[in-house]
Amino acid sequence: MSKIKNIIWPQVILFGDSITQFSFQSNGWGSAIADKLARKSDVINRGLSGYNTRWAKIVLPRIIPDQHSAETHIAAVTIFFGANDCALEDKNPQQHVPIQEFTENLKDIVRHLTSSGLSTDKVILITPPPLHEPSWEKECALKGSALNRLNSVTGQYAQACVQAAGQCGVDVLDLWTLMQKDGQDYTAYLSDGLHLSDKGNQFVANHLWNLLERRVADLPFILPYWGDVDPKNPESSLLC
Amino acid sequence: MSKIKNIIWPQVILFGDSITQFSFQSNGWGSAIADKLARKSDVINRGLSGYNTRWAKIVLPRIIPDQHSAETHIAAVTIFFGANDCALEDKNPQQHVPIQEFTENLKDIVRHLTSSGLSTDKVILITPPPLHEPSWEKECALKGSALNRLNSVTGQYAQACVQAAGQCGVDVLDLWTLMQKDGQDYTAYLSDGLHLSDKGNQFVANHLWNLLERRVADLPFILPYWGDVDPKNPESSLLC
Repeated sequence: MSKIKNIIWPQVILFGDSITQFSFQSNGWGSAIADKLARKSDVINRGLSGYNTRWAKIVLPRIIPDQHSAETHIAAVTIFFGANDCALEDKNPQQHVPIQEFTENLKDIVRHLTSSGLSTDKVILITPPPLHEPSWEKECALKGSALNRLNSVTGQYAQACVQAAGQCGVDVLDLWTLMQKDGQDYTAYLSDGLHLSDKGNQFVANHLWNLLERRVADLPFILPYWGDVDPKNPESSLLC
Repeated sequence: MSKIKNIIWPQVILFGDSITQFSFQSNGWGSAIADKLARKSDVINRGLSGYNTRWAKIVLPRIIPDQHSAETHIAAVTIFFGANDCALEDKNPQQHVPIQEFTENLKDIVRHLTSSGLSTDKVILITPPPLHEPSWEKECALKGSALNRLNSVTGQYAQACVQAAGQCGVDVLDLWTLMQKDGQDYTAYLSDGLHLSDKGNQFVANHLWNLLERRVADLPFILPYWGDVDPKNPESSLLC
């Protein structure tokens, strides 16, 4: 038995807030990526609803420990925060993180990953999507609070995320800009003004795949295609 | 840094053929389970399209090694084969597995898992769904072959799976019977006569969840709910 070689399934780790935690919902962007990577890589949901980068930075070493350095099975990590950090300080002090700290936190998160042995080309930052104030205001009202985020402020955090990515030398998916490009109706990408609709999930999946594709291009198809298994001597195909 | 306690995310492992490999497609049963288990357990796709139990039995020790015994992070394993084993010997000798061997293979697979330290109540066998011959015949014709499976034969393999589960003392989800119960139009559960449609995926997700729910009931919600994080001293909430 000791001769049998274990199969290491690489991992694509999705680290983020609720937009990541909910990414395996029906038609979610996480499951779309997982489907594309079946037999090549696991897609691991490390979404933490409601979390900001201050908290993300604290828990990251518990999720991806330093000692991971020796292992090379992480194919990519997405870092997708900002939708909570950008909450208005006066309306939502618990989740709000000042923009300068947000930038530093993102850089610290990338630094933790690279100091764990991950190369910068395996890290992708994702900015928050735009916020539709009238819809989100309704959600806030349901919880008895006033509108606690603004699209213009979300845009500043998105820009800070793009800058952090540039300073770290990692790729970035600027959803805030892309979803509003050329005067598109970006509200169709949102379900409640902040989280993603089916169309928004598909948008994220497609754009993220454009960035992920080259990172996973060299991953082998794990275990042989069934038609290539020698039916007379399957061990020869399956145990090598 | 060495004081930081790593978080072990439990795993629900889906081991099976193409119906498992494709389970993260849009509206797939795998992603539906993954969504329900976000922040509680990872759902790991170990589906191998085209594989039968003879091949599954050979590769399982490479996927879940014996030395896993010491670890207790597997919350459940689904074993979902039979759709290829039941292929007709004369029409599809490469995938066909005789029914007696199919039963023994399933029992060997369960035995490997339990000998690795998994308790029998963490294992769920799933039978193949019914086969719609006219639809599958068209698929076969597209590949230049004759109809290579029959619903009645699939039913015999489903029954063998139920028996194997009984002999091993593990739960079984008998899709073949449930999908045809009370004269339902089971063809709505299938996309091409063999694989699952959206409705079939939902059917599997719902029935499997009924079996999984009690197995995951004790799994803790990982990391605190954001509203419970002490904003003045987040470390006290996040590092314990």
